[in-house]
Amino acid sequence: MSQLATKWVYDFGGGASDGDASMKNLLGGKGANLAEMSKLGLPVPPGFTITTEVCTVFYRNKRQYPTDLDAQVSDALRALEGRTDKKFGDVRNPLLVSVRSGSRASMPGMMDTVLNLGLNDQTAEGLAKLSGDRRFAYDSYRRFIQMYSNVVLNISHDTFEHILDDYKESRDFNLDTDLGAESWIEVIALYKKAVEKKIGRAFPQEPKDQLWGAIGAVFASWMNDRAITYRRLNDIPESWGTAVNVQSMVFGNMGESSATGVAFTRDPSTGEKRFYGEYLVNAQGEDVVAGIRTPAPISNSRKADLKSEDLSLEEAMPEVYAQLIAVAERLETHYRDMQDIEFTVEQGTLYMLQTRNGKRTAQAALKLAVDMCREKLITETEAVLRLDPAQLDQLLHPTIAKDAVRDVFVKGLPASPGAAVGQIVFDPAEAVAIAGSGKPVILVRIETSPEDIQGMHAAKAIVTARGGMTSHAAVVARGMGRPCVCGAGTLQIDAAKGTVKVGSRTLKKGDIITVDGAKGEVLVGSVKMVEPALGGDFGELMVWADKVRRMKVRANAETPLDAETARKFGAEGIGLCRTEHMFFDAERIAVVREMILAEREGGRRRALEKLLPMQRADFAAIFHIMAGLPVTIRLLDPPLHEFLPHKEEEMQQVAKQSGVPIETLKARAAELHESNPMLGHRGCRLGVTFPEIYETQARAIFEAALDVAKETGNAPVPEIMIPLVATRRELELMRAVVVQTAERVFNERKAQVEYLVGTMIELPRAALRAGEIAEEAEFFSFGTNDLTQTALGISRDDASRFLKVYEEKGIYEKDPFVSIDRDGVGELVRIGCERGRAARPRLKLGVCGEHGGDPASIFFFEECGLDYVSASPFRVPVARLAAAHAALAKKR
Amino acid sequence: MSQLATKWVYDFGGGASDGDASMKNLLGGKGANLAEMSKLGLPVPPGFTITTEVCTVFYRNKRQYPTDLDAQVSDALRALEGRTDKKFGDVRNPLLVSVRSGSRASMPGMMDTVLNLGLNDQTAEGLAKLSGDRRFAYDSYRRFIQMYSNVVLNISHDTFEHILDDYKESRDFNLDTDLGAESWIEVIALYKKAVEKKIGRAFPQEPKDQLWGAIGAVFASWMNDRAITYRRLNDIPESWGTAVNVQSMVFGNMGESSATGVAFTRDPSTGEKRFYGEYLVNAQGEDVVAGIRTPAPISNSRKADLKSEDLSLEEAMPEVYAQLIAVAERLETHYRDMQDIEFTVEQGTLYMLQTRNGKRTAQAALKLAVDMCREKLITETEAVLRLDPAQLDQLLHPTIAKDAVRDVFVKGLPASPGAAVGQIVFDPAEAVAIAGSGKPVILVRIETSPEDIQGMHAAKAIVTARGGMTSHAAVVARGMGRPCVCGAGTLQIDAAKGTVKVGSRTLKKGDIITVDGAKGEVLVGSVKMVEPALGGDFGELMVWADKVRRMKVRANAETPLDAETARKFGAEGIGLCRTEHMFFDAERIAVVREMILAEREGGRRRALEKLLPMQRADFAAIFHIMAGLPVTIRLLDPPLHEFLPHKEEEMQQVAKQSGVPIETLKARAAELHESNPMLGHRGCRLGVTFPEIYETQARAIFEAALDVAKETGNAPVPEIMIPLVATRRELELMRAVVVQTAERVFNERKAQVEYLVGTMIELPRAALRAGEIAEEAEFFSFGTNDLTQTALGISRDDASRFLKVYEEKGIYEKDPFVSIDRDGVGELVRIGCERGRAARPRLKLGVCGEHGGDPASIFFFEECGLDYVSASPFRVPVARLAAAHAALAKKR
Repeated sequence: MSQLATKWVYDFGGGASDGDASMKNLLGGKGANLAEMSKLGLPVPPGFTITTEVCTVFYRNKRQYPTDLDAQVSDALRALEGRTDKKFGDVRNPLLVSVRSGSRASMPGMMDTVLNLGLNDQTAEGLAKLSGDRRFAYDSYRRFIQMYSNVVLNISHDTFEHILDDYKESRDFNLDTDLGAESWIEVIALYKKAVEKKIGRAFPQEPKDQLWGAIGAVFASWMNDRAITYRRLNDIPESWGTAVNVQSMVFGNMGESSATGVAFTRDPSTGEKRFYGEYLVNAQGEDVVAGIRTPAPISNSRKADLKSEDLSLEEAMPEVYAQLIAVAERLETHYRDMQDIEFTVEQGTLYMLQTRNGKRTAQAALKLAVDMCREKLITETEAVLRLDPAQLDQLLHPTIAKDAVRDVFVKGLPASPGAAVGQIVFDPAEAVAIAGSGKPVILVRIETSPEDIQGMHAAKAIVTARGGMTSHAAVVARGMGRPCVCGAGTLQIDAAKGTVKVGSRTLKKGDIITVDGAKGEVLVGSVKMVEPALGGDFGELMVWADKVRRMKVRANAETPLDAETARKFGAEGIGLCRTEHMFFDAERIAVVREMILAEREGGRRRALEKLLPMQRADFAAIFHIMAGLPVTIRLLDPPLHEFLPHKEEEMQQVAKQSGVPIETLKARAAELHESNPMLGHRGCRLGVTFPEIYETQARAIFEAALDVAKETGNAPVPEIMIPLVATRRELELMRAVVVQTAERVFNERKAQVEYLVGTMIELPRAALRAGEIAEEAEFFSFGTNDLTQTALGISRDDASRFLKVYEEKGIYEKDPFVSIDRDGVGELVRIGCERGRAARPRLKLGVCGEHGGDPASIFFFEECGLDYVSASPFRVPVARLAAAHAALAKKR
Repeated sequence: MSQLATKWVYDFGGGASDGDASMKNLLGGKGANLAEMSKLGLPVPPGFTITTEVCTVFYRNKRQYPTDLDAQVSDALRALEGRTDKKFGDVRNPLLVSVRSGSRASMPGMMDTVLNLGLNDQTAEGLAKLSGDRRFAYDSYRRFIQMYSNVVLNISHDTFEHILDDYKESRDFNLDTDLGAESWIEVIALYKKAVEKKIGRAFPQEPKDQLWGAIGAVFASWMNDRAITYRRLNDIPESWGTAVNVQSMVFGNMGESSATGVAFTRDPSTGEKRFYGEYLVNAQGEDVVAGIRTPAPISNSRKADLKSEDLSLEEAMPEVYAQLIAVAERLETHYRDMQDIEFTVEQGTLYMLQTRNGKRTAQAALKLAVDMCREKLITETEAVLRLDPAQLDQLLHPTIAKDAVRDVFVKGLPASPGAAVGQIVFDPAEAVAIAGSGKPVILVRIETSPEDIQGMHAAKAIVTARGGMTSHAAVVARGMGRPCVCGAGTLQIDAAKGTVKVGSRTLKKGDIITVDGAKGEVLVGSVKMVEPALGGDFGELMVWADKVRRMKVRANAETPLDAETARKFGAEGIGLCRTEHMFFDAERIAVVREMILAEREGGRRRALEKLLPMQRADFAAIFHIMAGLPVTIRLLDPPLHEFLPHKEEEMQQVAKQSGVPIETLKARAAELHESNPMLGHRGCRLGVTFPEIYETQARAIFEAALDVAKETGNAPVPEIMIPLVATRRELELMRAVVVQTAERVFNERKAQVEYLVGTMIELPRAALRAGEIAEEAEFFSFGTNDLTQTALGISRDDASRFLKVYEEKGIYEKDPFVSIDRDGVGELVRIGCERGRAARPRLKLGVCGEHGGDPASIFFFEECGLDYVSASPFRVPVARLAAAHAALAKKR
């Protein structure tokens, strides 16, 4: 019953539409924006959109269409015939259409497109007559056969390229332009024969059959591997589905007064306010995007920048250019964001084929947001939301040093900014494999295609020989935040041999190169980089973000350098100072080992006394930098054997230095060896068995705090954190050690500082028993790294062996060590918060695992009501912005 | 206000009492039973009990007594003076009392006792006159000083023994009996001087001060280390507290017509229905229990058994004996259980000092339960409840083979049955240390005392040179289920030298001996043992237990031998068949390694094809034994590196055998090495990455099941279990592998069997996501070993480093791998059950961790409503009985 009442098909074009931009969920991004542009009165070729609901119903219903879809499509087609004054399949005046996918979120290159649909042996001849250009008509027909066969019938492009190559060779033709109409007719015959051989039946001649084939292919492509991978990488739920847009064709390839192009209303690479784009004369839209021909700059200013000798659109078709600029301005003001538009000029007439919010580099996103806010186009809050926290990371990474020695191997287009170093890899699968082993790789390809997505993701940067600034490689690299150099045409890649040549110079697979995405250069070797500058727009936007943020952001830092970096990035304290990192210094490790090798408490205490002044100095340095801010110090956590040497050579050396017999050293190392150190004698278990260690650390903290308070008058508030607690009793015992030490130090010094004692919640039992543990804790810091390890039973160190396969098979959508597993680990965090707060309403709650710097996880922590997140210094700005986004999301 | 109304003191004796046997919680076991005996009209010396509530209030109230306690004690004392016609502190007719502790549960030897309280320089002289025996009076006084000083004033026994030894030497006395009254008066003077020197004030002369000192000492002893240890070992809550019994003295040491003894109404060692016990003429009760003098048999029949030459009580005092027998029969019928009684004969008059349910060996408990049920004294259900499941274990352990060659080192009393092998240790602390390292030890001592409790617990068996069947060593060993030989008087122990001699034969510390507790013999070396017989009474009681049990009991078994043992012990199926154990056979391990060393799926499949017939045969053998019963088979679980050799030597050998270059072998081993194998590439992660392994195992299972079904007509129901699942998707994927394999095999064979697919719940995430996992699972088996490891973050292999300290510091009351951590791991099990059953109401639930054989854990699983527990074959009867107890407990 409800299906009968559902509207599956929405018309657009000719200044009116059934839909509008607000209906993205139903019509997909492309369909909704076509409807909106049409409503705005912009020149949109008419057509109709089959809704995303059809896709959802299709997959829910064992790949069956809704029963009344056929009737609604027929109605829409009839209406389209009326508006275009053409007829589908009509020999004299044939209606030709494009069929394109369009999901809610932009998925560049992931979905398949068919152009010129409706052509067959008869209508091709009709088009020839109508256009007066036989060559154009048959070229279009052969393109249609090739595209349709590939997308709908699953026949490889190669099949057709081989036929064409053989044909050209037999006729001694060099270029496609050498072929006239009759040649294309001969090629078409060969194409059709090949199709029949492959699929066992003739190429479909009936336009309606063609249309349903194409619609089916769009829906089918929603479930292809590329689409699934892209959705996984971009957090797009499968249930969203895709719409299908059927639109009457306009032709950019109808001679020299025709053209096709793509443009951005501002520069998507830098964010500068200037029209940006490229176009091709006498070409179809796919030619630009596919990067097969290198397009010309759209404006004179771009032409100057690129030192191009091609005619710009501004020069070639000044009227059309002016019209396009006006449309672009209209769209940007209307959508209040930078637009990415596609257009076609058919014999001097401009048509808009698409508009959408343009993808942008982080740098551009920042500048656009701040500029548009200054232009009063958007509010501060909107500006904050315009910058994706995950993308912000790019702004914080190094670029090539100005004074670096640049040995330029090749120059191409600056397609995506940033810089990266890595070894050359030609094969995407190999890129995945090598990157998986922890080595940085640079993917070098003639051009990229959607099949390469995973390899591109694995690579630190991408270099291509072909394609423009809007080619697949460029768009995807910008989206992923990978530096990219495109269209470096002089590259001669021989993937089989494993070499890449420029002139007489050859590099091999595995050689190290540096990619400078901002300049479009590939440099030989590993080149010096510099830290990013963080003032100006960045600083301004972060101030706006901080206004709306609820959670505090701290840093995980243990060295003065880290602490300073953290402050520079806006950290509001330290959420995790791992004291063991201070022990690895050459001078200290000897004393630490002396302590470990001591057989009794007395010996341990003697070694600890030597460590005391060192630890005190460590803490004093950090307290100085974090003056007036909270500093959470975790007492010793790792198992003691981590401090002992493991290799024979090192053992010899240590034995020699320490004067301990090598046998004793070996015996102690063997005694301390653990099968599963992650679950071993570590954390508060050390404090329970050797209370003198925690006592010494507590003393160092209190003495340093008193020293700094005296010197500066600005007393730090140490938050002493007991790790790996599973029971209330452990915390009770360790808390007593800390409190007694505090009292002793305060008595000795006749002075006091405030301090807190709390614990990490990093074991499932601790989360479950948070109520009673909170009775002993003034704060909880969720250690979601270890909580993930224990809740999921996965050792982070060993996970690489299967976690990739796990992601591929959809077991974990994302690496649970990168983004918190909401359902499992997340429930434990939630339970920990609820039970902890129930027992102690003012319990301070934070997180100090890697997840503290991951935007998706930060959203979750906002939902849980944590007081702060703590991230690595470098990710502090990401966390600040993500916390702002999360707070805004919660408000809504 | 409420304190004013509270009755803190209860009178007993003289045929009436304020309390009765039902008031154990308030009056303690001893107090309640004294009241009850008194009510029954039995000859109980009058006295009063200070309640356990006083102890609780005392500790809750910073060691302050209730304000009105003093008045109530004074009243009770006055009443006691009235009933005894004596006066406390009266010079002519002094009332003397004993002060004894008495908690709810019997705690033998753990609490301190003071006898003869009320004696001082004056009343001693009064007692001398009254009794007409000066020597008796001053001997009693010096005993009192010694006992009181030790218990109340914390002065070591040694102090007094040295004084006495020196005195005897100076006077050339050999035995205590050489000392007359005047000598004792001189010794008393020396004792008092020593006390004054130690505590800085005189020994208290005022009886009331003495009384309050003793009461305080009893309460204090509730918190001494021994008591705390005993409570921990026996699951007695601290909050129970102890009562204090103040009772008028009767004297077993008033000459040859006086005696003191202990007896059991039946044999506590075998359960036979015959009066059992021992006594000493002219002695105080403590002399029997302390084992300082070896007592005489109580009856002629015991005398014959023990080939004793001492006079039995039956011979020495026939009338008293007859009276005692009558009292014993009355008590057993009244209490409906075997009684452990203490009595004193004062100049021909019998007094009852205590009765309680007697401790018994497992063998005796079984016989008593079954006999008493046959005698209609108790019901079947009561009989079931009389046997402690934890104790049952003893019946199932080996005894010395009849045909074993017995090289008897020494013969003593058969104090606790069972047999054990271990190395000789003389020091209880050393016993703990060596046992902690996993080596079995036998504790050899002159006699044991409460300080030795932990060492006794650590030992596999106990041997003493002194003491009878009711000595401390004997009672504690029986309670703990340790074999024990007592009173092996020819043993000459030199702990300092580390030797033990019998005649000319010497054994050293560390030498291996075998203890035969049933025969009372210590044998040299490790002696052959046999399995226990399980028919008769055992079989009958288990039938009664099975009647009331709700949960099924299965066994963890993978070999035919294990499976047969399990069936013999009454297992109702297999709850865990670990397939990897089948891989370690010499022939198979080579093929398993071939599979692991294969680089690709093809090579793995070739090796798996060789494994297939072996696995099929394994399963067929088990299906035969378990005909008609469910068999849960866990697919491969451990990480593959477990199957590779690790030592250089083995590697060489394997490389040679397999023809694989040693470098390849080493490389693969290195590649597979894991930091935390427990959290590594194991369980279903193997199945996800190498589905062919699970496919082959599934095929072996289905082919074996079809073979057995065809042969026997009794098709097994394999329950295929996927390990280490954390997500629904993992199970979905692995289930698909199993189901597809089943369909393939069923098609090939044109036959089918029923089967289930389920999973282990052994990760916290799995418990939390049990709802969605249950959608893919027909059963859950809680793998509480791994669930404990992950929930608590403790590697079982590494836990020994700190778990002992953890138990000592009260962090975990019991080893959480032995008895389930209810609060943490238990909550996960509960959540898993609830969410699993909510999603799939008929979900089958079981447990297959070690906890499946632990009585306390089985109680918890009954509460959770599990369908079955699975235990090691040997513990199946324990589980059956515990499940019966749990079901009965739940009903109540």
